[in-house]
Amino acid sequence: MAEPRHDYYLLTPGPLTVPAEIKAAMQRDRNPGGPDHIAITRDVRRYLLEICNGTETHECVLLQGSSTYAIEACFHTLLPAGARLLIIVNGFYGNRLREVAEGARVDVVTLQLPNVPLPTRADLEAALDADPAITHIALCQAETGTGALNPVEMVAEIARERGLGLMVDSVACFGGVAIDVAALDVDAVFVSPNKCLESVPGVGIAIVKRSALLAAKGRSPSGVLDLHAQWKFMEETGNWRWTPPTHVMGALGVACDLHRREGGPGPRLDRYRRNWRILVDGLRQQGFQTLLPDDVAVPIIATFHDPVDPGYSFPAFHAAMLRRGIEIFPGRLTAAGTFRIGVMGDLVEQDMIFVLGQICAAFEEIGVQMPLSDAAQAVETA
Amino acid sequence: MAEPRHDYYLLTPGPLTVPAEIKAAMQRDRNPGGPDHIAITRDVRRYLLEICNGTETHECVLLQGSSTYAIEACFHTLLPAGARLLIIVNGFYGNRLREVAEGARVDVVTLQLPNVPLPTRADLEAALDADPAITHIALCQAETGTGALNPVEMVAEIARERGLGLMVDSVACFGGVAIDVAALDVDAVFVSPNKCLESVPGVGIAIVKRSALLAAKGRSPSGVLDLHAQWKFMEETGNWRWTPPTHVMGALGVACDLHRREGGPGPRLDRYRRNWRILVDGLRQQGFQTLLPDDVAVPIIATFHDPVDPGYSFPAFHAAMLRRGIEIFPGRLTAAGTFRIGVMGDLVEQDMIFVLGQICAAFEEIGVQMPLSDAAQAVETA
Repeated sequence: MAEPRHDYYLLTPGPLTVPAEIKAAMQRDRNPGGPDHIAITRDVRRYLLEICNGTETHECVLLQGSSTYAIEACFHTLLPAGARLLIIVNGFYGNRLREVAEGARVDVVTLQLPNVPLPTRADLEAALDADPAITHIALCQAETGTGALNPVEMVAEIARERGLGLMVDSVACFGGVAIDVAALDVDAVFVSPNKCLESVPGVGIAIVKRSALLAAKGRSPSGVLDLHAQWKFMEETGNWRWTPPTHVMGALGVACDLHRREGGPGPRLDRYRRNWRILVDGLRQQGFQTLLPDDVAVPIIATFHDPVDPGYSFPAFHAAMLRRGIEIFPGRLTAAGTFRIGVMGDLVEQDMIFVLGQICAAFEEIGVQMPLSDAAQAVETA
Repeated sequence: MAEPRHDYYLLTPGPLTVPAEIKAAMQRDRNPGGPDHIAITRDVRRYLLEICNGTETHECVLLQGSSTYAIEACFHTLLPAGARLLIIVNGFYGNRLREVAEGARVDVVTLQLPNVPLPTRADLEAALDADPAITHIALCQAETGTGALNPVEMVAEIARERGLGLMVDSVACFGGVAIDVAALDVDAVFVSPNKCLESVPGVGIAIVKRSALLAAKGRSPSGVLDLHAQWKFMEETGNWRWTPPTHVMGALGVACDLHRREGGPGPRLDRYRRNWRILVDGLRQQGFQTLLPDDVAVPIIATFHDPVDPGYSFPAFHAAMLRRGIEIFPGRLTAAGTFRIGVMGDLVEQDMIFVLGQICAAFEEIGVQMPLSDAAQAVETA
């Protein structure tokens, strides 16, 4: 059995197992207005634009808080009076977008779809035809509730054809799954520091179309969530309007360096795909079935159906894994009777082989039979 | 000359020199929904209520972001329709409160006063008499721009007499200067993790009167800044509504432990007072004058008039200090021609004696004469 590389694995869909070098960056106190912190802020903003081809067309705005704050800030700042937002919902995080929009008192409607199959052109066109007052569309790029990769390019094409605004929630996959914000002509992309960028939580990030941002001066009914004001202040001073999370930003600076050194989104997703492959193939060999077919799955997390053994309970499985230094999430957010294992973070093949062995050992410890039935095996598409 | 205890001193009014034990707590990744993080959240909320006598009457709500987010969230959540807020302004951070209120589209008026003398009962009563539409009052407890301690008890007494709401910005001094929220009957107190609590920035904190919070359900025009919803979710689940800054919270948990071990606000402020005394007495002996008389100064920061030597420039002084591993702030936020030195953080007498020596050495290095004039000495009240 492979040796662990860490004494604790956080295999949730982010926060996750943060590389030690990134956490070590939080050992330094910094003056928010000093040259160090200003350089970190500038370099992070620049790098995040570079990796989504946004340097010419978009701006990166950092915001104290979390990704959800960046989402609400985009709604407040970028949606003009009279806007109606259509949100495509095919999982927990699509619903989360709706919840945030409602909290921000946005005029919002939803296109409710099943987890799979993925949204089609016909689905979206029918929804738009039925409600001509819709001015903007929003959707998750990766729906972390299931691990599905939504067809953002198709949605962007329709948005361009119809002259509609578009916001893409790339929180779960930015830095892993590539996105070209200039080609998509997207108004806003929501980004997290603590998913594929592998840093710590504590800051919100939005990539915003420059023209949309410039048109939004004075629009936000919230001061702290006013992305235009935040952006303008950062541009003019290099500093943040209010005390920034200096230690969290120190970590994000190192996280961007490590991301660049790994080669950017392509090589990072390749590493995750190798991790995902080991996990999915390994558990399929034990008879487990994934919730999604492989062709719609994004290799950052895998969702598995629970074992059929009536003795199985997620809390017992979770506790047995935790005794082995591995923390996992239930899948219940989107689909009952599933569990999820994240493959993002400071993880390579050796870690995944270790994790796989521990999953089998945990089931043995709690006396739960793994599926291994012929029927289950037959439907696998490994 | 005393030996330094740190290789870098951040002597700004917070962020500041964070104790190593607190920063070390950020080396652990945590699941936001796991028992560790839930216990940290619960213990921090409980401790912060304890030290302000709020356990019976108030609630502690934590919010992703910064103190400014907690302030705007209080405005959005606690001010009903038709509220008019009077802000007492006698320095930079009073103005900051006005700026945040305006950003949140609050109906706000100000009572503009000089840095000193401190606001009097007559000042406030005249302002309230002149505008009977005022429903709430807000002010800074410690005005960090100058280092002045405002008469919160007097303001609270007037608020109670007139049945007005009261919000106190204790960002700069909570954990050092004592506040009794039950006795003051205050609607909200704004708190920072990165001042007298000596932790890292990255979370907003509000102490809110329970009855005011319960009356505020559904009022906030912002979802993420809805303190009622955030509080209710925390009460029901122990968790946060959106991804919390887990590493920052790990640090705050340890910061509360250290604060308790030191003996709470009294002993902590005593330590700061000893630090402040060494600094102020030492620089007065060199002929420097403080901006404020001692009887209105809060011993968390000291503001000094610049040397009269025409060769003096703050950037040169700042750079010379930085070469010595010490970072300071200008005082220009509130009063031109001053500089400020913070005495909060992981600092004891030995550090202050070291800092004092380095200040003198820095002036010598940049060839600036310290005041030392008889005239200056004559006005000192050490």
